Amino acid sequence: MYRIPAGYFDAAAGLPLHPIAAEAMLAASDDGWADPSRLTSASRRSATLLEAARESVADNLRVRPDEVSFVPSGAHALVLAVLGSLAGRSRAGTRLVHSAVEHSAVFKAADWHMSRGGDVNVIGVDPLGRVGAAEFVQAAVKPGVAAAVLQAANHEVGTRQPVGELAAELAEHGVPLVVDASHDLLFGSAPDGAAVFTGDARLWGGPAGVGLLVVRRGTRWRSPFPADEGEYGRSPGPPNVPAIVGAAAAFRALRADRIAAGKRLSGLIRSIRARIEDLVADSVVLGDPEDRLPHIVTFSCLYVDGEAILTGLDRRGFAVSSGSSCTSDTLTPSHVLVAMGALTSGNVRISLHRDVTTDELESFLTVLPEVVAGVRAQLPGAQSTSRVVRDSDSPPPANGVPRVVDSRGRRCPLPILDLARVMPSIEVSAEILVLADDPAAAADIAAWCRMRGQELLGASGMGEGVTAYRVRRLH
Amino acid sequence: MYRIPAGYFDAAAGLPLHPIAAEAMLAASDDGWADPSRLTSASRRSATLLEAARESVADNLRVRPDEVSFVPSGAHALVLAVLGSLAGRSRAGTRLVHSAVEHSAVFKAADWHMSRGGDVNVIGVDPLGRVGAAEFVQAAVKPGVAAAVLQAANHEVGTRQPVGELAAELAEHGVPLVVDASHDLLFGSAPDGAAVFTGDARLWGGPAGVGLLVVRRGTRWRSPFPADEGEYGRSPGPPNVPAIVGAAAAFRALRADRIAAGKRLSGLIRSIRARIEDLVADSVVLGDPEDRLPHIVTFSCLYVDGEAILTGLDRRGFAVSSGSSCTSDTLTPSHVLVAMGALTSGNVRISLHRDVTTDELESFLTVLPEVVAGVRAQLPGAQSTSRVVRDSDSPPPANGVPRVVDSRGRRCPLPILDLARVMPSIEVSAEILVLADDPAAAADIAAWCRMRGQELLGASGMGEGVTAYRVRRLH
Repeated sequence: MYRIPAGYFDAAAGLPLHPIAAEAMLAASDDGWADPSRLTSASRRSATLLEAARESVADNLRVRPDEVSFVPSGAHALVLAVLGSLAGRSRAGTRLVHSAVEHSAVFKAADWHMSRGGDVNVIGVDPLGRVGAAEFVQAAVKPGVAAAVLQAANHEVGTRQPVGELAAELAEHGVPLVVDASHDLLFGSAPDGAAVFTGDARLWGGPAGVGLLVVRRGTRWRSPFPADEGEYGRSPGPPNVPAIVGAAAAFRALRADRIAAGKRLSGLIRSIRARIEDLVADSVVLGDPEDRLPHIVTFSCLYVDGEAILTGLDRRGFAVSSGSSCTSDTLTPSHVLVAMGALTSGNVRISLHRDVTTDELESFLTVLPEVVAGVRAQLPGAQSTSRVVRDSDSPPPANGVPRVVDSRGRRCPLPILDLARVMPSIEVSAEILVLADDPAAAADIAAWCRMRGQELLGASGMGEGVTAYRVRRLH
Repeated sequence: MYRIPAGYFDAAAGLPLHPIAAEAMLAASDDGWADPSRLTSASRRSATLLEAARESVADNLRVRPDEVSFVPSGAHALVLAVLGSLAGRSRAGTRLVHSAVEHSAVFKAADWHMSRGGDVNVIGVDPLGRVGAAEFVQAAVKPGVAAAVLQAANHEVGTRQPVGELAAELAEHGVPLVVDASHDLLFGSAPDGAAVFTGDARLWGGPAGVGLLVVRRGTRWRSPFPADEGEYGRSPGPPNVPAIVGAAAAFRALRADRIAAGKRLSGLIRSIRARIEDLVADSVVLGDPEDRLPHIVTFSCLYVDGEAILTGLDRRGFAVSSGSSCTSDTLTPSHVLVAMGALTSGNVRISLHRDVTTDELESFLTVLPEVVAGVRAQLPGAQSTSRVVRDSDSPPPANGVPRVVDSRGRRCPLPILDLARVMPSIEVSAEILVLADDPAAAADIAAWCRMRGQELLGASGMGEGVTAYRVRRLH
């Protein structure tokens, strides 16, 4: 029995080890411990297990075994996919094209590429989180582009990308498309036309130490880092054969009923999407409603801090993720939400594993509004409006001069809370100037205006990290 | 009970999973599967296990926990140690200094560094495999040196390096010493004075996917590859917590009796070293007889192909390693043996695990001479001397003109076999010119002359990969 803790709605952050993987790893610990590249009997047994695992994964994805390499993690796979594709095509140029909503490992790889003189073109997305196919192709087929990167589907909001269409167009121009297929491989097929694609065994119940790097035949790929002969020169050091065997066993097990599982989860997600905005006041569901991953739903809500929701849900026994800025060590909110222009405050990603019960889902949907309401009640200044809005000390503005709300030093979700509190006190068609230095404010004030039907007239930098947002009251 | 197969004399290539590691991994699979960097309860449990493992290893090595990072393998650890130390000191210069007998991962890292404009100085070793401390220091303290790398002890022949002495001298000049401690950590302490050192859990009965990278405080180390916050920015992607927990448990278990185990193995190795040259005709034991790793002994023997010995021993149930050229996909023999000027033909490394019995060792020492004799009997031309020596078609040489032996196209151990066959047919003080294109011939002809008391007068390149070796018969 697969022991996923009840209330675990964070499948896209990783699953516990699938029992089939645990069993395979145990069996492989006797025959798979030796370095498979050596000449002893123990090594030959290890090599046999490794190649069987490779063939199983290759067969399942309908690729050739020698196209499949096992690397130390999904993040390693992505970095190797991106930088190896660039290195293999360095004669064509040094430009990398990727979408604004890729996994952070792609951004890390791109930064590394730039620090070595490379050039990177980031393609924006629409409010659903999808790149424009025409814009992406146009950028990717320009002279000097070595490789382009696009995820099969977004890991935060679930929106699928037009990968098949793009790959075909890029192939005509000889530009390889690298596809982050990690979240799609649970339910989908190997991405059509991708030159290179990647996966992560953590997402399908394999052990943490196994990433999947698939380099299709005919692709010019060259190791960007020191490599030996291991895994076709794609990952150095003796491979972790028992872990790879476990990952392959879980992959096969989970993909066996991938279509039925996808359909079931899709139905559950559709029903959550339909109910969330009613259940949680001032919330907005993100991502494409139809063309999406079957197991992920994401929403944001006004006037709450994502970390507080996470903590509140965790105390009630539910695990989710959040792209709000307050949830990480860094001060910036999820780059995916920012690129979509989505509200970053109170962001929650629910991702379902296939054994989720409707009962646990229903209790989650009962608890969620209580937790959000509880967090809102605890917000600093929720009781005392006088402290929340720190208007400038200047005298009341004359007609036509915007009211200034000073939210400097206040973190998400406070700037939009400040804005929302002042708005009713000004006249319709009058303006408010919000001064804020929280990086999340840009996306959040825009999203708030959209949700509330008010108008964001513009934003201008004031120096020292402060931005002034001009908002007009429309109703 | 630790199930190491009987006859396994290849401990330095990796051990089966220690039962304590297996148990710890199983226990950690419930509480350690989640990404430890997240905020859910599952992640916090995972982070607790990870930090406990880190503290256990740190405590055992008497370093600080935040100096310890877990990376995907021993090879990754070495590459990161070398390139991260160079990156952290790029202002001081771009030169790397390392010994000629380092692990191949150091050479791969050095190649990578050179391909990016870096500069590498390789310091040779004496016939025992040890760098000269004075020469190493002189090279490493030159202006422009960013980092120096030296193993604690050699992985092929067991010779210890003067790491403590060097580290102290280098520290005075502000040059960090990176130490590959992987084989020494089973029995020794953390290398004194090293700025950075590495280990490999495969060698101590941990799982394959865990390398140890220890960056001591005050060291300027910077990730040479794209990294995130994981493992203090030293290894990206969620760490494999169950594997790390298993590695730490095995480390503690194996180091608990490291001194007693080292003494016992040392005694066994000493006795093998004393007997091998008598047991195996025309063999020579390599490496320092005293200042050495306690569990490794290596010898080479004339007129045999290393792979044939390995295969022969494997058929009789014994696993060993070989640095002979014929045992790998590449045509070059072990760079360690070449750097030592040691015989590369018929090379065998015996490495003991601590549960080895004297019975299995005695049966190995009975079987070994039989296998070597069997291989020698099977050598091409062993029966027919007329085919072996392909003298040039020229008429018999006049007085003073060397006899030419054409060994072109013949692989190790045939060139020295050719030489040995012709030698008795020439007069004392006459010369032989051996033409060979096997890269192993350089070390092997030199080693043969030393072993046989004959004189190698010189070697000169003839173009197209062919070298002419001038040998004088002395007796």
